[in-house]
Amino acid sequence: MSTPQHLAGRAAELDAAGSLAGVRDRFELPDGVVYLDGNSLGALPRGVQAAVEDVVRRQWGHDLIASWNTADWWGAPTRVGDAVGRLVGAAPGQVVVTDSTSVNLFKCYVAAARMRPGRRVVVTDPGSFPTDLYVLQGAARLADLDVVLASPPDVPAVLAKRGEQVALVALSHVDYRTGELWDVPALTRAAHDVGALAMWDLCHSAGALEVRLDADGVDLAVGCGYKYLNGGPGAPAFLYVAARHQDAFDQPLSGWNGHARPFAMVSDYEPAEGVARGRVGTPPLLSLLALEAALTAFDGLATADVRQQSVSLTSFFIGCLDALVPDVEVLTPRDAGRRGSQVSLRHPDAYAVVQALIARGVVGDFREPDVVRLGFAPLYVTHGDCLAAATALRDVLAAREHTDPRFAHRATVT
Amino acid sequence: MSTPQHLAGRAAELDAAGSLAGVRDRFELPDGVVYLDGNSLGALPRGVQAAVEDVVRRQWGHDLIASWNTADWWGAPTRVGDAVGRLVGAAPGQVVVTDSTSVNLFKCYVAAARMRPGRRVVVTDPGSFPTDLYVLQGAARLADLDVVLASPPDVPAVLAKRGEQVALVALSHVDYRTGELWDVPALTRAAHDVGALAMWDLCHSAGALEVRLDADGVDLAVGCGYKYLNGGPGAPAFLYVAARHQDAFDQPLSGWNGHARPFAMVSDYEPAEGVARGRVGTPPLLSLLALEAALTAFDGLATADVRQQSVSLTSFFIGCLDALVPDVEVLTPRDAGRRGSQVSLRHPDAYAVVQALIARGVVGDFREPDVVRLGFAPLYVTHGDCLAAATALRDVLAAREHTDPRFAHRATVT
Repeated sequence: MSTPQHLAGRAAELDAAGSLAGVRDRFELPDGVVYLDGNSLGALPRGVQAAVEDVVRRQWGHDLIASWNTADWWGAPTRVGDAVGRLVGAAPGQVVVTDSTSVNLFKCYVAAARMRPGRRVVVTDPGSFPTDLYVLQGAARLADLDVVLASPPDVPAVLAKRGEQVALVALSHVDYRTGELWDVPALTRAAHDVGALAMWDLCHSAGALEVRLDADGVDLAVGCGYKYLNGGPGAPAFLYVAARHQDAFDQPLSGWNGHARPFAMVSDYEPAEGVARGRVGTPPLLSLLALEAALTAFDGLATADVRQQSVSLTSFFIGCLDALVPDVEVLTPRDAGRRGSQVSLRHPDAYAVVQALIARGVVGDFREPDVVRLGFAPLYVTHGDCLAAATALRDVLAAREHTDPRFAHRATVT
Repeated sequence: MSTPQHLAGRAAELDAAGSLAGVRDRFELPDGVVYLDGNSLGALPRGVQAAVEDVVRRQWGHDLIASWNTADWWGAPTRVGDAVGRLVGAAPGQVVVTDSTSVNLFKCYVAAARMRPGRRVVVTDPGSFPTDLYVLQGAARLADLDVVLASPPDVPAVLAKRGEQVALVALSHVDYRTGELWDVPALTRAAHDVGALAMWDLCHSAGALEVRLDADGVDLAVGCGYKYLNGGPGAPAFLYVAARHQDAFDQPLSGWNGHARPFAMVSDYEPAEGVARGRVGTPPLLSLLALEAALTAFDGLATADVRQQSVSLTSFFIGCLDALVPDVEVLTPRDAGRRGSQVSLRHPDAYAVVQALIARGVVGDFREPDVVRLGFAPLYVTHGDCLAAATALRDVLAAREHTDPRFAHRATVT
């Protein structure tokens, strides 16, 4: 069994080597905090403050309306979309940054059903992040769809049975609760084999894993800008529509920003060419351009190296747990190939454990009903952080700090 | 006829008196610019830069995920909604700031039809801003609605004929092109008289006119944050649902932020109480909190005084036109009671005239096909600006500056 001294030495070695050594300096991180919640809100990349100040003071305050042209505000959704595309294996012209993930899900559910006329079934994972389910319920009611729930391992059986009725298989790349990683190419092929489309929710993978949308033949994808992409609280989300589907992508939120000639002010909607037809209204430019600046933290990094660092961090953290807290139940697969960039633990007092860890400067989050969720953002979490978190967990549990009454009250949002 | 000297003296008098004297100092405005495009993008209020810096550096960068609680990010959409509500005559709890105007229109069209089962007609103005029409086309197709086009003066006749089929009358408070102001209480009553709902688009009135949603019995309203509310480029939009309708407001974009218990992570959608059910996904907080800071520019101002200043500005401007450019065609009603906060002029070379004015430091905008559109944001436009703009227009037309070839090319966005 590894001693704490051994683990500390190993952490230092791993942090000094590795192709992402030094990348942490691209972020502003508070002192004394081990931040393992980048899967909920990514940390602040260094260039963002100056970029936002320029947007507010010069582009808005001084140049005013002219910035739509001079700063190319109009082109920002597809320009930033291409920058996201580089991180999810999408060639240019297939990603637009727009709206929230929830709104983009709605577009995809309805558009996918229209792309497969005569098929009314959408297959999705009951373990999806709730908004994926909620929005599907709303879309199904309006567009007369049937929702069939199946965990990813059960999807092939559902397709074997009802494949001819299935318009869309809608799954998440990484389970938000357990951190389990699903097989995009295999499940996409399974959908295609029965003539269905495959949509992937990349909220918990974009910016942390190797995503290969084009290579894997994915049809549609959505994801958020504020987790591993570090775009800031509520940063706009993204929408991927594979080039081959763009002409047929007939999404229901036909706002003027998605029009072919938005300034012609004609009376009838006519969708723009390309992925720009996924746009709806005027985008929130402060948030959108903060995301653009944030994405420069990925400059020069290969997604394969980002993924390798993620695996190294989560593997090392699990190793630290085995050495220091061997009794804790690890919910996330131990096989790195089946693991996203997080490690989830099960504990009956999970909420209080998270609070006690936060009191020790280790920030993770709680997910119902009994999950301690720790995210390992590959660009700024260190192996030293992994050891510190495992050590803090050992100390919290050993001293039963989570039974402190001040950790029992649940805040509104966690 | 007034001489230029007389007009200059009058402008100085009006700017020195008036209940909004000095309010212009609450804005950062570039030197040498007469900014008459606040109806497209409002100017930068002074407190915004510091507020955004605090959001980025402290709330996001330092406090990270904790800011959802400590900075009450979670409550921002309804908190900022109440601040907007004060400017549109809505008691607290009826306005939420969320998404774009286009997305909010979609919610309202579908929800209104559900609130009037058996009625499939939506009556709207063919002169509406295009996105109102485009989104309605998208909603109508999905929710099986019939769209009937009628200018506001013709709406009562349509209601007399087809009233029993009408679910919703959806109109704009101010015509974006002509600046004509429509009669909210009368048209709302006309809708109610046949059992229909009334929805108003306040994009061109909130922050410049006296809007009395509660007093006028309006059912639903939407509007944008970046025009006279000065929230910054693409600031999130707002949605008003009268308290009496909130339980029945069954909007189709059922995202997790609008759930009754968003962090319970249950599988089925259950709408939140109140107007919060109009929320969808995670809001773009940099843009949303910039809007919150921007709204403080209205602190201590009565909307009646804001409206009075708007009337004073547009009336004085029209007086300047009569004195200096008597031949120009004014498209906007000369009756102040029928006028929003803009003055539109018709000119066959409108695009080039706007460009020539911009070259002289007078910033307005062009609208298809032949409209020079000048907006008078009451908080920062002065009577001196009005005279300067009319003088510049006189000089442009006298010297035929608009025939300069460099003004012929149309930029992407204007």
